[in-house]
Amino acid sequence: MAEARITPRAQDYAQWYQDVIREAQLAEPAEVVKGCMVIRPNGYAIWEKMQADLDRRFKATGHQNAYFPLLIPLSFLAKEAQHVQGFAMECAVVTHAGLRTVDGKVELKGELEEPYVIRPTSETIIGHFFSKWIDSWRDLPLLLNQWANVMRWELRTRLFLRTGEFLWQEGHTAHASHEESLVEVRRMLDVYRDFSHEIVAMPVIQGIKTANERFAGAVETYCIEAMMQDGKALQAGTSHDLGQNFGRAFNVMFQSQSGERQHVWQTSWGMTTRMIGAMVMTHGDDEGVVIPPKLAPIHVVVVPIWKNDQEKVRVLEAAGKLAQDLRDDGLAVKVDDREGVKPGAKYYEWERKGVPLRIELGPRDLDAQTVMAKRRIAPAGPDGRPGKETLPMDGLGVAVGKVLDEFQAFLFARAQAFRESNTISVDSWSEFEQVFADQGSKFVWAHWDGTTETELAIKEATKATIRCLPLEGQGPAPSPGKCVKSGKPSARRVLFAKNY
Amino acid sequence: MAEARITPRAQDYAQWYQDVIREAQLAEPAEVVKGCMVIRPNGYAIWEKMQADLDRRFKATGHQNAYFPLLIPLSFLAKEAQHVQGFAMECAVVTHAGLRTVDGKVELKGELEEPYVIRPTSETIIGHFFSKWIDSWRDLPLLLNQWANVMRWELRTRLFLRTGEFLWQEGHTAHASHEESLVEVRRMLDVYRDFSHEIVAMPVIQGIKTANERFAGAVETYCIEAMMQDGKALQAGTSHDLGQNFGRAFNVMFQSQSGERQHVWQTSWGMTTRMIGAMVMTHGDDEGVVIPPKLAPIHVVVVPIWKNDQEKVRVLEAAGKLAQDLRDDGLAVKVDDREGVKPGAKYYEWERKGVPLRIELGPRDLDAQTVMAKRRIAPAGPDGRPGKETLPMDGLGVAVGKVLDEFQAFLFARAQAFRESNTISVDSWSEFEQVFADQGSKFVWAHWDGTTETELAIKEATKATIRCLPLEGQGPAPSPGKCVKSGKPSARRVLFAKNY
Repeated sequence: MAEARITPRAQDYAQWYQDVIREAQLAEPAEVVKGCMVIRPNGYAIWEKMQADLDRRFKATGHQNAYFPLLIPLSFLAKEAQHVQGFAMECAVVTHAGLRTVDGKVELKGELEEPYVIRPTSETIIGHFFSKWIDSWRDLPLLLNQWANVMRWELRTRLFLRTGEFLWQEGHTAHASHEESLVEVRRMLDVYRDFSHEIVAMPVIQGIKTANERFAGAVETYCIEAMMQDGKALQAGTSHDLGQNFGRAFNVMFQSQSGERQHVWQTSWGMTTRMIGAMVMTHGDDEGVVIPPKLAPIHVVVVPIWKNDQEKVRVLEAAGKLAQDLRDDGLAVKVDDREGVKPGAKYYEWERKGVPLRIELGPRDLDAQTVMAKRRIAPAGPDGRPGKETLPMDGLGVAVGKVLDEFQAFLFARAQAFRESNTISVDSWSEFEQVFADQGSKFVWAHWDGTTETELAIKEATKATIRCLPLEGQGPAPSPGKCVKSGKPSARRVLFAKNY
Repeated sequence: MAEARITPRAQDYAQWYQDVIREAQLAEPAEVVKGCMVIRPNGYAIWEKMQADLDRRFKATGHQNAYFPLLIPLSFLAKEAQHVQGFAMECAVVTHAGLRTVDGKVELKGELEEPYVIRPTSETIIGHFFSKWIDSWRDLPLLLNQWANVMRWELRTRLFLRTGEFLWQEGHTAHASHEESLVEVRRMLDVYRDFSHEIVAMPVIQGIKTANERFAGAVETYCIEAMMQDGKALQAGTSHDLGQNFGRAFNVMFQSQSGERQHVWQTSWGMTTRMIGAMVMTHGDDEGVVIPPKLAPIHVVVVPIWKNDQEKVRVLEAAGKLAQDLRDDGLAVKVDDREGVKPGAKYYEWERKGVPLRIELGPRDLDAQTVMAKRRIAPAGPDGRPGKETLPMDGLGVAVGKVLDEFQAFLFARAQAFRESNTISVDSWSEFEQVFADQGSKFVWAHWDGTTETELAIKEATKATIRCLPLEGQGPAPSPGKCVKSGKPSARRVLFAKNY
């Protein structure tokens, strides 16, 4: 297959994003299915890593997995007034069940009495079942999660970030009081933050959405927001306080310990395959994708180097043994022993694919009982070329494990430094406009008068939106000021950015 | 929640099946979504165990996971003539994208130019992408698997066994020759057999479907067939030799090593959530579900027994410690320390839920440093009551592991003995009719003349179908005879049974 060029980020960030995903074979547009994508093995393997880690965290916090129907009766959607307004435009609708072929042409038959929508999210159908399962305070809390596909018909799509169909997990819980459900909302927001920091190596800011950006049907939407390399924000996960809204809509009631019948308090929270796109736009460079070790399907690629058949036999045997030793230490290792492909071409390919560590192994390394290791991103050495490390073969697994841990920490620190150097406080409207002029975006802490009117006026003027009202410790300490747009009083700064 | 009675199997097997699934909270009919089900946490946890084991086997045989779109353009289905005929009746069709609310009522809008069907299986959409990805023999074999939901609109549904939507895995592979693709078909059939035997403790017969029962679009369908407790067969997994049918339909071509352009040879193979129903109907009894240890989300339930507060403190502390020790040995343990529920009621509940092993722990056990263990199904002791075992607390994890291994082996041996005692060879039509009279079914080895006409006449007369033409070693050694219905010559016996 011909190698295609990766557009430099500085030239066209959106094109770069498409290029690196194509070159790393993470996904591709489905084309024949409008707005949908195929997640290719290299991309799906990253999703499997994300799933495994999140699932472990969900179970450790007391949640169980279940599976609810893909199809939702149309009438269910309308039971929560805000909810249907929020999702109506995006719903794929099933109206028929059955086909027939007439003269070789396929026609529809079996029109349904009531259409179904393909779930855009499952609060409604799960609310229905909660009402059947919950009767007493003894049945609470009910802590469920679902791994599933969902569908939202989007007009402008982008691989992983916004597609007609995507994969996600959706947590749905019911509680006996608002205090309890709020604890859950915050607990899961923390799970998302920890996952983002520890696994994706992507720093996030935790906050609360404005009414305008809230999940349709929620009382409050909590979120984590990350900065991409172009200064834009990406909403990486949300955790919703649903209050009693869906409890009322689906009549989910319980008898409290004191004997009253009450509606339950619910939460929902979700994280999606969009996280793969977030990873790409947090760590990737002009050479390709960069995968943090904790998400890497392949931790180490071993490239054996030989000049003649004798060296080849010796080096391949040593590479195989070395790979097996590393695997015994729990690492995922690929030996690239392809014939007829030069080492340089192999380096290039595995860099594009984002493998965190490359090990080069030649006859001289064998003589010295060492290997040459090269991190996917390494600081330049004194000669200006990216640094390589010599690691002793003895105890290599431990050394490689340490290098991978360092690389994971390096990626997080680098992303954090990038975010900090692109985060500013702004007090004047002209400066605000300048930051967001053309394609520009940063994280901007600015005062806002708290009205939807001003929020929309700012968006209209600059395309920047309020990403969140930061939780305690997530931004500048609250102090009063004047709205950057209206000049009216403001109690605190909120986070502005353009967003994906 | 009131405890409902479990209908004895001898009285009404179909009702028993519903009862045990309801009482074990494995799943329930969705009702509001025609023919669909909710897989509840207790059922989904079994599916997770199945997934983990199968996924490991798929990866060990070189397969990678990927994800393809849920929706398939209607025109794709028609590209393989047999395929559309086979699935046309069962397709859910998406015709609109978008809703609007008018006077509080929800209406459809956004009719699509071309409707999509929700995948009933993915050969067509995957064939489309194979044609984009495959160009040379170097791209082969391409070995993919997908974990997904699929939808087949069924009129008569039954939890797990036949539902409108179900979960499954579908393997899709492409090869450079028919020899290679046939090896793959058989390899995956063996994976399914091994999984059924080793994990589900369910013996299966491997065979080939008749043309009439073949997957729509396949050249040959291989299957594994299991016997349920009512003597009926359940098709537990299939592996299809697709020949070049989909390769031709979707123009999937490769350049061979000798330079010719050829269509690829494909396979597909699938196993579904129906396997949970198979487990229920293989091992369950009138007390409830029985879960083989290798599929059990909870291996051991510990029931502490006390008469007063002093005993309670002592017993609960010991139970907690014991549970932790067992967990350290890799076992999943539940301590049922509920107040106000008698030990007998706890026993009853966990038996219904199918937990393989119960450990009873009271003050006298603590004094003796032993526990009383009771397998979910245990041979009766000399007193006629089900046997309990005394196990020393010292080294309990190892002892319990051994008991669970024995129990797993016992379930398989019991199911195999049951199948053997309900398998017969039949040579006369009157005896054949008698076996299948009313609700009756056994596994019947009988001669068949090889025609679809006779196959359908037998089905019409008895409701028994040919489950498979057995592979070598899977049934009586081939020897010629006369068809049980037509009297015409037959080369070998085939497997007849009623089926799910």
